[in-house]
Amino acid sequence: MNDTVFGKIIRGEIPATKVYEDDDFLAFLDINPVTKGHTLLIPKIQYVWIHEVPDDIISAIFVKAKELINTMRRGLGCDYVQLGVVGNEVPHFHIHLIPRSLSETNVQTMRPHEPYENLEEMQLFAEKIKKELI
Amino acid sequence: MNDTVFGKIIRGEIPATKVYEDDDFLAFLDINPVTKGHTLLIPKIQYVWIHEVPDDIISAIFVKAKELINTMRRGLGCDYVQLGVVGNEVPHFHIHLIPRSLSETNVQTMRPHEPYENLEEMQLFAEKIKKELI
Repeated sequence: MNDTVFGKIIRGEIPATKVYEDDDFLAFLDINPVTKGHTLLIPKIQYVWIHEVPDDIISAIFVKAKELINTMRRGLGCDYVQLGVVGNEVPHFHIHLIPRSLSETNVQTMRPHEPYENLEEMQLFAEKIKKELI
Repeated sequence: MNDTVFGKIIRGEIPATKVYEDDDFLAFLDINPVTKGHTLLIPKIQYVWIHEVPDDIISAIFVKAKELINTMRRGLGCDYVQLGVVGNEVPHFHIHLIPRSLSETNVQTMRPHEPYENLEEMQLFAEKIKKELI
């Protein structure tokens, strides 16, 4: 049983602002975003560390990450999207996707620094991304 | 012609402390490491941004990144390895692989903060990784 917050989100026991879901993967907005639109992509099967994830899932999830990066670029109008696998702050392997601007100087931090005003604003960012899903 | 520093490293025009090379990919130590052993993995074909990289190369390079992460864990004895695709400071898509310790508190920065004492120490870290390549 995956008792992490991500396991609970996958099972629908706690809410999340989802932007993408299929049989294998789920993407939703980080509630403490580094920048607004910051998305987490996870496999539905729980692995703690990237070094434990089977190769076929590595292949598929990073291709999905690239697709989402392009979706986020279209939907949010950001210049590019940083990708990061940071640690085990939640012990369920996850990929951070962080929208960035070429004019930004603070791109070497993974610390949250752009909180949403409220849940409505967060939902708005999710909608901007979702409407660009192919 | 790939006139970036990475293109010059691929062509052997400037030196690099390589840890892995095959027909498609090259990995070498970052000269300004976030932590010692910080490795960069690149495709030999130049793409500027991750969102421009073809899916088959995305699949193969992230599987290779996972392999290198396990190699680095064995060779360096680090607890885990962060993975990051940060930006275009060099306009040739590259994956940062950063050795980390579970006791470290500074894991949310990508800023270099652990310089090598000298080239010999850098070479020593490369050898630690290379001896664990399968």
